[in-house]
Amino acid sequence: MTTVAALDVGGTAMKGAVVREDGTAAYHRWPTPRADGPDAVVAAALKAVDELVARAGSPAAIGVVVPGLVDDDAGVAIYSENIGWHGVAFRDLIRQRTGLPVGFGHDVRAGGLAERALGAAGGVDDVLFMPIGTGISGAMFVSGALVSNRYAGEIGHIDVGTDLDCACGARGCLETIASGAAIARQYHRAGGEQLPGAREVAARRAAGDPIAERVWDEAVNALARALATYVSLLAPERIVIGGGLAGAGEALLGPLRHHLRQLLVWQREPGIVAAALQDNAACLGAALLAREALTTNHSLNQPRQEDGSS
Amino acid sequence: MTTVAALDVGGTAMKGAVVREDGTAAYHRWPTPRADGPDAVVAAALKAVDELVARAGSPAAIGVVVPGLVDDDAGVAIYSENIGWHGVAFRDLIRQRTGLPVGFGHDVRAGGLAERALGAAGGVDDVLFMPIGTGISGAMFVSGALVSNRYAGEIGHIDVGTDLDCACGARGCLETIASGAAIARQYHRAGGEQLPGAREVAARRAAGDPIAERVWDEAVNALARALATYVSLLAPERIVIGGGLAGAGEALLGPLRHHLRQLLVWQREPGIVAAALQDNAACLGAALLAREALTTNHSLNQPRQEDGSS
Repeated sequence: MTTVAALDVGGTAMKGAVVREDGTAAYHRWPTPRADGPDAVVAAALKAVDELVARAGSPAAIGVVVPGLVDDDAGVAIYSENIGWHGVAFRDLIRQRTGLPVGFGHDVRAGGLAERALGAAGGVDDVLFMPIGTGISGAMFVSGALVSNRYAGEIGHIDVGTDLDCACGARGCLETIASGAAIARQYHRAGGEQLPGAREVAARRAAGDPIAERVWDEAVNALARALATYVSLLAPERIVIGGGLAGAGEALLGPLRHHLRQLLVWQREPGIVAAALQDNAACLGAALLAREALTTNHSLNQPRQEDGSS
Repeated sequence: MTTVAALDVGGTAMKGAVVREDGTAAYHRWPTPRADGPDAVVAAALKAVDELVARAGSPAAIGVVVPGLVDDDAGVAIYSENIGWHGVAFRDLIRQRTGLPVGFGHDVRAGGLAERALGAAGGVDDVLFMPIGTGISGAMFVSGALVSNRYAGEIGHIDVGTDLDCACGARGCLETIASGAAIARQYHRAGGEQLPGAREVAARRAAGDPIAERVWDEAVNALARALATYVSLLAPERIVIGGGLAGAGEALLGPLRHHLRQLLVWQREPGIVAAALQDNAACLGAALLAREALTTNHSLNQPRQEDGSS
């Protein structure tokens, strides 16, 4: 266990950490200059990497995770609708810049690894980690292994029967009604004020606002429908809810358990719990990928060495 | 490769095979006395086992697969709504009766193993084998491994938004509109004659019957919706359609590909092909489990022996 640096490149902010040998982590944040285009985001990420490496002293490795479609093995960010990039070879870029072994992967899958190793997703073989934020997606553990298929886990785009168009081009997706952004949008559409996000809708609901109550219930009901489908297919023992919406705690989880129980007839009911690592999950996952890069020599794009040499 | 006996206990018929060393198989069929209750079905299955063992001469092992909820490891048929049994310890029963190593498992998962080893599901890591018959379920291969979670694979109970009650107690399940039984039922409900099954509805459709055309299209559309969900979650490279409905060939697969393509926007489109082993898949899967029992000593309910002794 040596010091590693970790970076989670998000759509609105980048979060970095220096994780020391004793497991303590010091976090840093930078805004993501998304409005300036994808090249500016890549440049800002590389600058954040430099800063983290400087803060860490001499880290043994660095881990970076990004959203969208990601080729973990090749170390390439294939595509992100949110950020707009195509085919950014992050692992090579960072390795050339720092000379360090580089772990690279997908933000949600990495977050799932962190929740499994350090948080709320450990100890069972079949578990779903589902962060709900601007979007909704899943890191799926099946028979104890993370599903690493880069196209998999798009639970936010399960059709839950809404009549709303999704940014993805389809209609009826879970994300059209139950993401953080969608909850605020639906509240406004239903005649409520324009609020910054789902957190404020939750606060209105707690204060007895009937529009907020209805919009929240529709979101939770849609989440339950998507999870019922997941349960029929993959029968997880536990579902770990993460992302910003998990901050609502039992105001989300209580009704979600209730709605899901109504939908399950003969299926095994999974436990539903909040993520433990809050919005640090992806960043800590990047740190785990950095440690993995130390043992696999992945950073050098070479086959694994059995004799320990590099 | 020695001779093994194999039995697939279905809801209406039991299919047996003697599979010789050279891979050739001789099939036998018996009716399933379901109307006489679960004990009669168990007795009939054991009698079929005796007959298969006698026909085989001295088989090296026997494999048996059954429907419903199955504990492959314990060798127990936990529950079948269709047959009505609860907790039948098939592996022990058959081992005591025959003195042979016994492979035991779930009919659809075993069918998936057979399609993967001998049929249409080989050569890709992520593949779904989905037989459509009286019911609909799936054998799922994720990253090359069969998902063996006994509660998983219930794709027939994904909610596709119909307003029909399912025999399972839920509403809107895929099986309410797209199983073989449902297609015949919906044809009758829509004003058509009472036909024995989906095969006859397909024939009417081919002859230009507009009711058959509509019922068939609704079934295929529902199948496409369920598969779109599967694709968003697990992103298979190929989907192998089996069971009786696969007998319709391109009359099913053509419209299914078309409907699925309409629903997928950014997802990777899987190939959709017909199963290769027809209704022999589960029985051949039982034969594979029999061969596996020879190497794992599973039949003796002992931990694997590394030194080859038993």
